[in-house]
Amino acid sequence: MNIRPLILISNDDGINAPGIRTLIDVVRPLGDVMIVAPEQSYSGMGHAVTLTTPIRLRKITGSKEYSEYACSGTPVDCIKLALNNLMPQKPDLIVSGINHGANSSVNIIYSGTMAAAIEGALGGVTSVGFSLLDFSYNADFESGKAFISKIISDILSSGYEKGSCFNVNIPAVSLDEIKGIKVCRQAKGNWIEAFDERTDPHNGKYYWLSGTFIHQEKGIETDLWALENNYISIVPVTLDYTRHEQLNAIKNLECNV
Amino acid sequence: MNIRPLILISNDDGINAPGIRTLIDVVRPLGDVMIVAPEQSYSGMGHAVTLTTPIRLRKITGSKEYSEYACSGTPVDCIKLALNNLMPQKPDLIVSGINHGANSSVNIIYSGTMAAAIEGALGGVTSVGFSLLDFSYNADFESGKAFISKIISDILSSGYEKGSCFNVNIPAVSLDEIKGIKVCRQAKGNWIEAFDERTDPHNGKYYWLSGTFIHQEKGIETDLWALENNYISIVPVTLDYTRHEQLNAIKNLECNV
Repeated sequence: MNIRPLILISNDDGINAPGIRTLIDVVRPLGDVMIVAPEQSYSGMGHAVTLTTPIRLRKITGSKEYSEYACSGTPVDCIKLALNNLMPQKPDLIVSGINHGANSSVNIIYSGTMAAAIEGALGGVTSVGFSLLDFSYNADFESGKAFISKIISDILSSGYEKGSCFNVNIPAVSLDEIKGIKVCRQAKGNWIEAFDERTDPHNGKYYWLSGTFIHQEKGIETDLWALENNYISIVPVTLDYTRHEQLNAIKNLECNV
Repeated sequence: MNIRPLILISNDDGINAPGIRTLIDVVRPLGDVMIVAPEQSYSGMGHAVTLTTPIRLRKITGSKEYSEYACSGTPVDCIKLALNNLMPQKPDLIVSGINHGANSSVNIIYSGTMAAAIEGALGGVTSVGFSLLDFSYNADFESGKAFISKIISDILSSGYEKGSCFNVNIPAVSLDEIKGIKVCRQAKGNWIEAFDERTDPHNGKYYWLSGTFIHQEKGIETDLWALENNYISIVPVTLDYTRHEQLNAIKNLECNV
């Protein structure tokens, strides 16, 4: 008997975003799926969890072939609720996305898409986040589909440690321009912020966050290099935030009383 | 001429929380301070940024000795706004907290307090987050004060690389029980979630997130060990989320077309 893998799908752009609808299409032939995704967009929400308001779930009755829930909470809430209350057993894989916009370099830190994947990995389930380098709602997700399918199949058939976590970014180019898939490390980069200061009709000041992303390096082994050269980047993600190489240098902070 | 360091203070429990008021008391003798903290509690907000609503700032006029702003946004918004729009120059240090509750082990991922510190480090400023292992609003912050002062002084006078980031947790015990300060790595742990499913007066189901934290290890070099043994833990934090040791193992995911 050939048992199909069980795959949980989520995102941060909301359950109706074209990115997750594309991901569902890609994943369905590869296993049995359950979808638990936010009702609304939670882009830029990082690893937020909902602690002070109750969480609501809405079962979507459109399909008889798989279960689909919209959740009032964040991407991380979706994963926690799916793993603990909704799924018949632990899934074999969690996939998140396809995000509308890049989550390469340090942007993983702000990403709700990657927060869902990281939460899955914390729960012991191998998880992958997919992001397309196009922020627009009507981004063209077609070019990446075959590669996403290949990556998911490869990970499902691999012997990678349970709870592995991967950050996949896809250049926004046509299929014939994509050069392949490259395993990378996270490039160094940062945002130069420029808050737009405005005055409302009642003479109150307010601010809009905007900014420009700065590449701090472009080494061939980084995700930024891969993406600029039309490769799909895949970065293995750690759950250990210790800066191990600094442990000895700060030993002088220790004291005993 | 002895130039006093410039120190930015923020938190995630909100500008009126006893934790940040304690931190302000501790930090003021050590330098010139500016405070930019959320109007309300943003606990559990991870690295969220505000993208879809405008951000408001309220200057607090209580003190003539330092500038203090309440911000409608998240801890990360506070840091971005302070660094880019409010401060006369880049601060020498950013301190965040004192959080009401532990941010040891994997809890750094969910923490708004540590998100503020990480955002500071991303901006090139050495940053420290402080957390007390007591979630209550009226937690007793007295025992940790002298140690917090020592850690900040030591970091200010150290030659650590700019943009270093540290996660400090303080056991909730009396001063004479604290054994000292220990440099640690982040322990492995995870939450076993238990969503409380309830029914509202209109017959709608809703969920409250709750759970139990599980220690997956208790090695002497970890922050969980230090805290259980009444040491203050300090973990150097990385901004590189690459799981470097897995890079070779997943090379088979690469392809060229």
